[in-house]
Amino acid sequence: MDSWDNLVYDAMLAYRKTAALTAAVKLDIFTLIGGGAVSSDALAEKTAASSRGMRILCDFLTTMGLLTKQHGAYSATEPAQRYLDRSSPAWIGGSIEFFAAPEMVRLVLDDPVSYVRHGGSAGLAHLAPDHPIWLRYAKAATPIARVAAKRAAVYLATRHAPVTVLDVAAGHGLYGIELAKAFPEAVVTAVDWPSVLELASANAMGSGVSERFRLVAGNAFEVDWGGEFDLIILANFLHHFSPEECATILRRVKSSLSPTGRACAVDFVPNEDRVSPPMQAMFAFSMLATTPGGDAWTQSELDEIAKAAGFRGATARPLRPTPQSLIIFET
Amino acid sequence: MDSWDNLVYDAMLAYRKTAALTAAVKLDIFTLIGGGAVSSDALAEKTAASSRGMRILCDFLTTMGLLTKQHGAYSATEPAQRYLDRSSPAWIGGSIEFFAAPEMVRLVLDDPVSYVRHGGSAGLAHLAPDHPIWLRYAKAATPIARVAAKRAAVYLATRHAPVTVLDVAAGHGLYGIELAKAFPEAVVTAVDWPSVLELASANAMGSGVSERFRLVAGNAFEVDWGGEFDLIILANFLHHFSPEECATILRRVKSSLSPTGRACAVDFVPNEDRVSPPMQAMFAFSMLATTPGGDAWTQSELDEIAKAAGFRGATARPLRPTPQSLIIFET
Repeated sequence: MDSWDNLVYDAMLAYRKTAALTAAVKLDIFTLIGGGAVSSDALAEKTAASSRGMRILCDFLTTMGLLTKQHGAYSATEPAQRYLDRSSPAWIGGSIEFFAAPEMVRLVLDDPVSYVRHGGSAGLAHLAPDHPIWLRYAKAATPIARVAAKRAAVYLATRHAPVTVLDVAAGHGLYGIELAKAFPEAVVTAVDWPSVLELASANAMGSGVSERFRLVAGNAFEVDWGGEFDLIILANFLHHFSPEECATILRRVKSSLSPTGRACAVDFVPNEDRVSPPMQAMFAFSMLATTPGGDAWTQSELDEIAKAAGFRGATARPLRPTPQSLIIFET
Repeated sequence: MDSWDNLVYDAMLAYRKTAALTAAVKLDIFTLIGGGAVSSDALAEKTAASSRGMRILCDFLTTMGLLTKQHGAYSATEPAQRYLDRSSPAWIGGSIEFFAAPEMVRLVLDDPVSYVRHGGSAGLAHLAPDHPIWLRYAKAATPIARVAAKRAAVYLATRHAPVTVLDVAAGHGLYGIELAKAFPEAVVTAVDWPSVLELASANAMGSGVSERFRLVAGNAFEVDWGGEFDLIILANFLHHFSPEECATILRRVKSSLSPTGRACAVDFVPNEDRVSPPMQAMFAFSMLATTPGGDAWTQSELDEIAKAAGFRGATARPLRPTPQSLIIFET
């Protein structure tokens, strides 16, 4: 080996990669480069950045595999073009404002020993439901939810058509909206905090389904959301809670279903070994750092939770090409 | 492809890796595992951590390539055993307290757009020379300097033997100490802030060279450090400064050499393309984020700086297996 193994240094200094990508997304460098080859001086001029700053940033993005450099000009690599160029339908750049939000970074980096020692953290529970952060997060999560929401709706559309749909912790509302689009008869009830529901409502309006979109403001564990739903969906919800809390909410869900109603969830489901696939497995660490008892639940854990809530079990199916799965709770 | 390309997500969430490694080093997990296979419950017990927290941490370290997992027990991979087990002579775990120090992390992550836009940051210049952070950093940098300091001394030992040595910004003092060990006639003058010199002095004592070790407290750009040195070394110093500042200090260095004296530096020297090798190239971004005008200087830039300071030029040679180079300034 020519030089020290990079693995340990890379890990020590990994936070630099988040910083570089944050700057690149906020200055929209990948959109400016597009399919071309652009010098760092030209990028600096277009973004009102210093030449020196832009050169060092672009070189760093090159070492990260997001750019290539030839004759002093930078081009975007395939994943960068697909996911970080705003003109790409698969753009997810905005989600860095959620994944690398300053509050999240602080929760994860300020005192890692503490959440390992205590088995979790209070997370952002101290922030009130009307704190602007929740709306910001719901917005930032929108680009990454698009594909998963469409895929979930496509899968569910092959089954019987629901008339009443409940979207628990709807956030941006995309899951309910895609279901409303897939089932032209369906009326969707979206539950979330009031400030976040404004975003869901605006998105429903933008998708032309607002007439079949109802809002219920409140805590998903307590609010009266009605009953007799044909389909209830919990997207990116269960990973925040302990198995007991998951069973509690699933009991509420079960008792809110119509006789032929179905319940499902969308989540990161790692393999039973808990260390693969990487993205799904690594998600557990985020939940350790930012929640008191959340986790990335495996198929067998979801099955157990489902049984504790009175379902017959749970089955997870990958929502390819996203890293998430659709989980069906069997009645 | 089975799932979304990991590259972009990995970058967004890269800071988790720094957090996980910080927890692992502080709880000394790799030393506890050693060459064996240990369950996360056993590690939790030994570190007074929660089972849940330790399991999720160990799974995450496995996805990072630092551990492997078999039948519920974790073993350290080769780089983890070599660099993160305290009983290994190559242990560098402690350097995370410098590389991922909370102040550094904040400088890099708080507002990346700002330093790209302005081409640098004020860094930690607001902290007084007697701030405890400098001693903490000098201590944390010790494990990674060991090999480079030895290699530098070995290389220099093949040349003429110096009697008077000046170690500029000595920090832990390891470069001067290794030179004192390599040249039994040499008297070393170590320049740094007073609080840091206490560490250098203690290390010189521990290495049995304290009788040939002199301390000069003050700013390397201003302090009277004497003259007529046979060898002057600037280790991990030039990367903090602009080319003009580097030339200024090198002019001071040149005027402090004896007629046959030599000057050298130890630093990260990327290739002329500035995007390879990865570790050396990526170092430039750390300097953008944490200094007003520092950088990872290439061979040709060092040559230019050397000429501006009155030297004939500069030549960098890799200090394998470290990622650093020894730079010789030609008189």
